[in-house]
Amino acid sequence: MKVIIVMGSSSDKKVMKGAADALELFGIEWEARILSAHRVPEELKNYVESQVTEGAACFIAGAGLAAHLPGVIAAYTTLPVIGVPLRAAFDGLDALMSIVQMPRGVPVATVGVNNSFNAGLLAVQILAVHVPELRERLAQFRRERAESILNEPKNREVFND
Amino acid sequence: MKVIIVMGSSSDKKVMKGAADALELFGIEWEARILSAHRVPEELKNYVESQVTEGAACFIAGAGLAAHLPGVIAAYTTLPVIGVPLRAAFDGLDALMSIVQMPRGVPVATVGVNNSFNAGLLAVQILAVHVPELRERLAQFRRERAESILNEPKNREVFND
Amino acid sequence: MKVIIVMGSSSDKKVMKGAADALELFGIEWEARILSAHRVPEELKNYVESQVTEGAACFIAGAGLAAHLPGVIAAYTTLPVIGVPLRAAFDGLDALMSIVQMPRGVPVATVGVNNSFNAGLLAVQILAVHVPELRERLAQFRRERAESILNEPKNREVFND
Amino acid sequence: MKVIIVMGSSSDKKVMKGAADALELFGIEWEARILSAHRVPEELKNYVESQVTEGAACFIAGAGLAAHLPGVIAAYTTLPVIGVPLRAAFDGLDALMSIVQMPRGVPVATVGVNNSFNAGLLAVQILAVHVPELRERLAQFRRERAESILNEPKNREVFND
Amino acid sequence: MKVIIVMGSSSDKKVMKGAADALELFGIEWEARILSAHRVPEELKNYVESQVTEGAACFIAGAGLAAHLPGVIAAYTTLPVIGVPLRAAFDGLDALMSIVQMPRGVPVATVGVNNSFNAGLLAVQILAVHVPELRERLAQFRRERAESILNEPKNREVFND
Amino acid sequence: MKVIIVMGSSSDKKVMKGAADALELFGIEWEARILSAHRVPEELKNYVESQVTEGAACFIAGAGLAAHLPGVIAAYTTLPVIGVPLRAAFDGLDALMSIVQMPRGVPVATVGVNNSFNAGLLAVQILAVHVPELRERLAQFRRERAESILNEPKNREVFND
Amino acid sequence: MKVIIVMGSSSDKKVMKGAADALELFGIEWEARILSAHRVPEELKNYVESQVTEGAACFIAGAGLAAHLPGVIAAYTTLPVIGVPLRAAFDGLDALMSIVQMPRGVPVATVGVNNSFNAGLLAVQILAVHVPELRERLAQFRRERAESILNEPKNREVFND
Amino acid sequence: MKVIIVMGSSSDKKVMKGAADALELFGIEWEARILSAHRVPEELKNYVESQVTEGAACFIAGAGLAAHLPGVIAAYTTLPVIGVPLRAAFDGLDALMSIVQMPRGVPVATVGVNNSFNAGLLAVQILAVHVPELRERLAQFRRERAESILNEPKNREVFND
Repeated sequence: MKVIIVMGSSSDKKVMKGAADALELFGIEWEARILSAHRVPEELKNYVESQVTEGAACFIAGAGLAAHLPGVIAAYTTLPVIGVPLRAAFDGLDALMSIVQMPRGVPVATVGVNNSFNAGLLAVQILAVHVPELRERLAQFRRERAESILNEPKNREVFND
Repeated sequence: MKVIIVMGSSSDKKVMKGAADALELFGIEWEARILSAHRVPEELKNYVESQVTEGAACFIAGAGLAAHLPGVIAAYTTLPVIGVPLRAAFDGLDALMSIVQMPRGVPVATVGVNNSFNAGLLAVQILAVHVPELRERLAQFRRERAESILNEPKNREVFND
Repeated sequence: MKVIIVMGSSSDKKVMKGAADALELFGIEWEARILSAHRVPEELKNYVESQVTEGAACFIAGAGLAAHLPGVIAAYTTLPVIGVPLRAAFDGLDALMSIVQMPRGVPVATVGVNNSFNAGLLAVQILAVHVPELRERLAQFRRERAESILNEPKNREVFND
Repeated sequence: MKVIIVMGSSSDKKVMKGAADALELFGIEWEARILSAHRVPEELKNYVESQVTEGAACFIAGAGLAAHLPGVIAAYTTLPVIGVPLRAAFDGLDALMSIVQMPRGVPVATVGVNNSFNAGLLAVQILAVHVPELRERLAQFRRERAESILNEPKNREVFND
Repeated sequence: MKVIIVMGSSSDKKVMKGAADALELFGIEWEARILSAHRVPEELKNYVESQVTEGAACFIAGAGLAAHLPGVIAAYTTLPVIGVPLRAAFDGLDALMSIVQMPRGVPVATVGVNNSFNAGLLAVQILAVHVPELRERLAQFRRERAESILNEPKNREVFND
Repeated sequence: MKVIIVMGSSSDKKVMKGAADALELFGIEWEARILSAHRVPEELKNYVESQVTEGAACFIAGAGLAAHLPGVIAAYTTLPVIGVPLRAAFDGLDALMSIVQMPRGVPVATVGVNNSFNAGLLAVQILAVHVPELRERLAQFRRERAESILNEPKNREVFND
Repeated sequence: MKVIIVMGSSSDKKVMKGAADALELFGIEWEARILSAHRVPEELKNYVESQVTEGAACFIAGAGLAAHLPGVIAAYTTLPVIGVPLRAAFDGLDALMSIVQMPRGVPVATVGVNNSFNAGLLAVQILAVHVPELRERLAQFRRERAESILNEPKNREVFND
Repeated sequence: MKVIIVMGSSSDKKVMKGAADALELFGIEWEARILSAHRVPEELKNYVESQVTEGAACFIAGAGLAAHLPGVIAAYTTLPVIGVPLRAAFDGLDALMSIVQMPRGVPVATVGVNNSFNAGLLAVQILAVHVPELRERLAQFRRERAESILNEPKNREVFND
């Protein structure tokens, strides 16, 4: 049960690390590669197909600008592909449009601009559909986040410092 | 293994039918409800929680305008929630922004504007992660769609109507 | 006659302080909490309902991204809810769309992006509908602001720094 | 306790009727006028000031394009002014921007594009802050709307037309 | 033959200085004031009307956000009003929309975002319609700018810093 | 004292007629031509220069898409050039951007999308700077428009159709 | 010297016919296919590579929504690829962004939304770089278009329909 | 076989250098000039026409704001014109719209915002249509870029430093 993280350029690493962080938090195995749909289309295809064969559970792909990477991966597998629009121009609107507006028949599960952590978390949620322990861990994660916000200062203290 | 389809208003039915169509195509059980995050928040919460208890696998939620429905469902479950932005104003940009830009920790898997069929298909892909037969049916679906496009007319015939 | 200020994350404190500033200026009692519609939906509901019971007059809610907080509060009360779109991505357009485009039947009184001071002032104006002294203070506030702009330098002095 | 509805052009009547509809529903007295901030600025000022003197409780103003009407009214009164952006160009984005982005010190409570019904409802909510009977009627309105959505068809019947 | 420069806030001075610069370049008399359509509507009206009486030739008004200033001035005079959208949010799109989309019957001559120099220059061009000497100076200004660009480095020298 | 109306394509005639209508209303002489900056650049230049020589007072240019026409005319004359963005794609945003965002030194006086009537009116206002009779006629035009709006139905009659 | 026209769906035929029309006008050989980057990625790659081998001169690709087709073709050839953004949602802004914002190293020559005729014409211009006869025909095409616009009615006749 | 690089202002030099870099990489002769469509329209026309006469193969033009430069060049030649939208306001959306939305009959081959390197590369691809050696060098360029991305770190190393 492994999640594959792909990004289109080495400049995407810093933002995309959030996906790995989320997966680590839940003990999910992952593998990351920098592979461009435009520079190495053949290798991308081979990589996707070999990961599918080896039992990958889903893909996370981050890309900016005319962000084709998630959609091209989705063309090579019917496993869920999660797309992360990266901010490089137009506040990421170009990447969001290029990822979310996939045509009928080939969906990409899109998360918010630069929100790679949510991509990782969504991958965990997808795996958890059939893995009760993961669902329990997700519930625990939610409880911890709830507690943390409930511990924030209240009233006048909110606006101190 | 049931998928729950929720929409915020009866005016969303026509577009959201595509999600049921996709699920039917793969023989996936589904249940549909019209429940608004703003008009019946309590009933929505109860419905989501009871469906989770009864073993729902994932949720599909379609909404337009300030489309809160998918995000509010995501607040009540850690199952995957697929959001469909519906076109009601601004060509659906308002709904897209309201669905895809979820904060860290509570993702919604967003598909294209009005693309409810892709939401249904993504739900099938999520279920298929652990169900080999479904993956085979998805591959078959892809092959049929590929064949259909390969049978389109070519060259001068392309532009004959 | 108390105004309740809610924000979705501790990172919103700095901007949202403007709402408290405006309320203080007019001697209006206020209470502030950090409560997320997605992380603690149940506590948010309880908080809103208990404040309503205890006589709150109106709510101010600030949120960024897929800003559901004001709309979710509006689902739990018929008191006026004032929404402040916060700039976190897309110059705040995502938050503006998510707040202002509420469906028929559940309005949110939306102010400008990051303009929490105006949210506080609008709350004062709402309270003042039935409180003559407040209206006088609002008139005084307007006069002071008018005087201050009338005292700005004129002509060539305008462009001397 | 009267609400004043102003619109900038006779072409706005059809959409703005929704505000009167909402007020009627709650038995709130209203008065409507067509007055433009650009064509009759003096008369607009006089009308606003005389309505304030005669005890108006709040203003609703609808305008399209460079929609100055709500902001100009807000310059002449400290009563709450509710702005309705009307769709005339750019899907109403021009009017939304012109209404919601008011400067510090002069808020306009903005509702969704063409959503005049919500403007009327917000006016009722503002009046209700000090009028217990109105709050009860608002609660009743909410319950009826909740019931109506709970009576919508379920499951397969959802997609039967 | 005097041009009146108005801006809505003292924070607009730095950008609006460009209008005065352009007028100075052509020896045109100008007068500048900071007057807000929302904070001092009455004084603004009086100022506009008294300037018209005293023979002002045209107005330049700069404003940001829901930039009503140019349109409100245009409501009080039939002299040409030149509007400068100032960048304060949304890259100035809100101000541009609020200024350029004036309704039928009350035009504002809009220039580019923050481009106050062009506003001053347009004022000169308007005055020059009836003043041959000014037209000659404008032609001279164009020639100087043409010469200056023709003296830019060529070829490889272009990209030497 | 003649105003020159230029448009880029015969498909622009219907919208651009509004400019001639406004000029007729004030008895201003006008001349209209269909000339494209891209198809007949040389003839456009010659036409602009000959009109300048023959005493044209200002230019009105309407164009859609990558609307270069007003800016190209402005490159050939220092007379005021009024630009009308025409709606052909993107609700006219492309034309608006292409017209209003002129660089420093070559302004185009831009009016609202498809608002050719205002372009004609602005031309009249420009001519009127030095022509007292025209200013009186403009004042009369304003008074008539004011009267017409003051004669609109009031109150309940507003919403009777 | 053949130009290859590819489109992503049979629903694109009507708009894309303009590219063939332009090529026909200049006697350029063309071939058209409906092939999707998402439905038949392998066949698309094979088709592109075989056309390159057989001496194709350049590609024209039209696509809507998350329009990946031109960019994916560009990944398989270094021949010029001309992209036509098709209007299917958001007035074609999604397709424009997905086509024009290609990353460094893999350009797509983008034309206007739905402007397939210009794509065909650009292909002719590219071929003409080394083919003097074609350049003469392009000059002739320009002259005819110039003549046609110069024969449009003038002055009052412009606005007679 | 020379490529002509034109830019509208000396402030564009830094970004536009990328076009020259790409051409140098492939040993293509180039010439660069700073010439504005608005400040020196006559000289621009003469320069374009003389370069065409002297055998230029194609033009690259970069401009920001109301970016008319590429379109005006395209009006004077039927050689391919490549347009580079430069970011000066609105994240470059104004320049993109002004360049890509050229009317039927006069295409500009548009690349991404600030992506002058791709403009240079597209020029090489256009020249290469008839020059086999260039095509081989383009293939080599692609291979090198492919190798470079394949040498990027993998897996955990991706996210180190």
